[in-house]
Amino acid sequence: MQLKVKASNWSAGLPVVMLNKKTANKIGIHAKERIFLRTIKKNPREISAILDIVQKGLKENEINISLEVKKILKVRAGNKVEVNFSHPPKSLEFIKEKLNNKVLSEEKIKKIILDIVENRLSEAEIALFISAVYKNAMNLKEKISLIKAILSSGRTFSLKNKYVVDKHSIGGIPGNRTTPLVVAIRAAAGLIMPKSSSRAITSAAGTADVIETIAKVEFPMNKVKKIVQKTGACMVWGGALGMVPADSKIISVEKQLKIDSEALLLSSIMSKKLAVGSKYIIIDIPYGKNAKVSKQKALKLKRKFEELGKYFKLKLKVVLTEGHEPIGNGIGPVLELRDILDILDSDKQGPKDLEKKSLFLAGEIFELTKKARKGKGYDFAKKILDSGKAFDKFKEIIKAQEGKVIDLKVSKHKKVIYSSKKGIIKEINNKKVNSLARVAGCPIDKYSGIYLHQHVGDKINKESKLITLYAESKSRLNEAFKAYNEKDMFSIR
Amino acid sequence: MQLKVKASNWSAGLPVVMLNKKTANKIGIHAKERIFLRTIKKNPREISAILDIVQKGLKENEINISLEVKKILKVRAGNKVEVNFSHPPKSLEFIKEKLNNKVLSEEKIKKIILDIVENRLSEAEIALFISAVYKNAMNLKEKISLIKAILSSGRTFSLKNKYVVDKHSIGGIPGNRTTPLVVAIRAAAGLIMPKSSSRAITSAAGTADVIETIAKVEFPMNKVKKIVQKTGACMVWGGALGMVPADSKIISVEKQLKIDSEALLLSSIMSKKLAVGSKYIIIDIPYGKNAKVSKQKALKLKRKFEELGKYFKLKLKVVLTEGHEPIGNGIGPVLELRDILDILDSDKQGPKDLEKKSLFLAGEIFELTKKARKGKGYDFAKKILDSGKAFDKFKEIIKAQEGKVIDLKVSKHKKVIYSSKKGIIKEINNKKVNSLARVAGCPIDKYSGIYLHQHVGDKINKESKLITLYAESKSRLNEAFKAYNEKDMFSIR
Repeated sequence: MQLKVKASNWSAGLPVVMLNKKTANKIGIHAKERIFLRTIKKNPREISAILDIVQKGLKENEINISLEVKKILKVRAGNKVEVNFSHPPKSLEFIKEKLNNKVLSEEKIKKIILDIVENRLSEAEIALFISAVYKNAMNLKEKISLIKAILSSGRTFSLKNKYVVDKHSIGGIPGNRTTPLVVAIRAAAGLIMPKSSSRAITSAAGTADVIETIAKVEFPMNKVKKIVQKTGACMVWGGALGMVPADSKIISVEKQLKIDSEALLLSSIMSKKLAVGSKYIIIDIPYGKNAKVSKQKALKLKRKFEELGKYFKLKLKVVLTEGHEPIGNGIGPVLELRDILDILDSDKQGPKDLEKKSLFLAGEIFELTKKARKGKGYDFAKKILDSGKAFDKFKEIIKAQEGKVIDLKVSKHKKVIYSSKKGIIKEINNKKVNSLARVAGCPIDKYSGIYLHQHVGDKINKESKLITLYAESKSRLNEAFKAYNEKDMFSIR
Repeated sequence: MQLKVKASNWSAGLPVVMLNKKTANKIGIHAKERIFLRTIKKNPREISAILDIVQKGLKENEINISLEVKKILKVRAGNKVEVNFSHPPKSLEFIKEKLNNKVLSEEKIKKIILDIVENRLSEAEIALFISAVYKNAMNLKEKISLIKAILSSGRTFSLKNKYVVDKHSIGGIPGNRTTPLVVAIRAAAGLIMPKSSSRAITSAAGTADVIETIAKVEFPMNKVKKIVQKTGACMVWGGALGMVPADSKIISVEKQLKIDSEALLLSSIMSKKLAVGSKYIIIDIPYGKNAKVSKQKALKLKRKFEELGKYFKLKLKVVLTEGHEPIGNGIGPVLELRDILDILDSDKQGPKDLEKKSLFLAGEIFELTKKARKGKGYDFAKKILDSGKAFDKFKEIIKAQEGKVIDLKVSKHKKVIYSSKKGIIKEINNKKVNSLARVAGCPIDKYSGIYLHQHVGDKINKESKLITLYAESKSRLNEAFKAYNEKDMFSIR
């Protein structure tokens, strides 16, 4: 059936079209089913979309299309499109094979990824893929195929430099904002580090949120390349680059489902590193009671990363770090930035735990690239930090990202919370810290968050300061104060 | 944040709202994420919806809501609603427990079903539930909880009659339109049979599609009750009744994913029977090479049905029937109706296989309800059919459903296909028959389909008639002819 396109300027996040109920009945398709569209041209463009049904506003010979559809079909109001019932893509069969614990060939995995990128699989079908891979682990060959498929369905960039380095932390630890420090120190030593980071999903801030408080983080690919060519590094938001679109789509459904599978975690990280041409990579896996993984699982994950690193001919080192408490004092975009600036600025005193971890991660790459001898990486990094060169490099990168290093003020509404008893802090619950910071307004209210006055091992008295809460409004502050529970967050003995 | 509702009259099949991009950013929510809405009233109404983002047409203080949202919030244009980031429902945790092979409590299953009905779970999340139950079988207790939860989230109706009977076939066999015959025969004997049927999903026709060729099949609940009170039976489309909304939503996602799980199959059938208060039930499981299940799986399924029947205090009998070829001659809504009328009308000669199977299924219920003695049910049913009482009852039901029994013509475009060799028909592939009928236009083109001239065991010569194809247009007919392949459909030796 041929229908006329009605002007449209709405985005649904995925390809959606609207039809009058009568038209839908004629085609024999129900709301939420898949519909096939093809342009009336010599070289027709095609797409499968999801159907919404409207009761008014559309004539029987009209179709309303979302921006996602418009972009792919390259049609405008008044153009005609051929509309038909759409059969499920072949890749749905392959997903079911995986669900039934079969091993998938490179070809089949490639088809699944292609169909995800080209919107032929619905969110429910992507959810089935995620769940299939969650229940039935992928073997090494499948994971390699998955990474290759994700890479080949997106864009890569090559910097033609021997020393393209990267780091990645699997996350879960509040604070722990080592990336900006590691980037500045490594780039100050002449290494190339095109770092793309994420925004907060369930945490108080992602590196992109932190850098965004003083600079831009969303740039088109060619601009990112220029920033890296000029300064040796960048700190941008990966989502804006569109390098690995398959990964972004899978992640958006994973976010809904809140499940992580090993194969998808590994392929997500590896494909991003390979897309920017990284050769030397440090992977940081924080483990422990309040971290994402136990020590046992961290060791297992380490081996999987190493297998993949070997296959893709990378110099990849996995380090296991303790993740039993937050790192640094500030939790929240601006609060974390202040910790970083205090460390970079040799006139100031930043949190020692964050400084040490950053020097360690920077040092590891110096040893991996042979910029420093075995065992001397940490000292090499420390020298660069103390010299002020890392701070200069940081300012240079921020400037290239159209920003300026300034000392930002945090939210004016604040409340100090004191200890109710004497003792030693045995534990700080990472998840509770994250969720409290979110109640206070993070990551949207970038000036809000938590300042931690104590770390594990600290001796405290009754009435010692434990944390300070910051929020943008009185009501947010009260809500956060209500949500705070000493016993949930600290164990003091 | 408070936003003003903009008039809306679009349906998305599930609760969806639209926001301006800036407003979405302010709340910190992305397209396709879940958003929470609450009315500004003393007794506020709440709903979680999925967010779409539009670039034009909405101001920053406005929100556009789908009809599904409007219905639940009971708001209209100009009203204000409170809008907020929404956390995933607790039931998502329970789904993940099942995915990790845990046994779910009655409470948890109830919460999952409630959240499905009240649109708190997205399609991706429902897909995860389906996949969890597919991978990890539910035990008897879980299945009972699931059936109870589906029932209690919907509406039931009670007919206060001792002899409410039903039948169900798990499907997969083309033709096999026993239901209208069984309904007419049983009701003519004074049994009550409030039959709700489905429309075709992957087959050429469902019972609702067949009856719809001569009567209405969509009625509100109270009207259905009246039809049953008047005639002792009905043949309506179950989807219109909204009795088990949880089941309908699960099925709509299962249709996308094309996976069947045992627990969901059992609960879907059992909850529908219980919702109309059936006490005596015959379940027909066709098995065999071209059926949905093997004999072994059919026997396993039989036991599961019997366990559930026992728990719910039903007189339930499961019969295994051979499903290795189509039953009856017509495949397609009108073609199947003609077979039925030929059997009901004692002046005509209908297909014997369909007649026998219908008499068998009717007879089984006569024995179960003790209307006939053990072993005498078939003869009892045959007597009613031969007497013309079943035909009278059929006409009475069709009339009550605002229809009329008339002899419909099939499509005028037809093509007879002859055998290319001599031999005996050893096999007819059910799936190929279904898919060919769909190419010919079924179920949308109700006059189209296939007429089978031969069945398994028939001796044929070169140039014997095998099938006749019927289609509404020359082009459809050609397409079907092109799709036909003798070797795929028949094995002749």
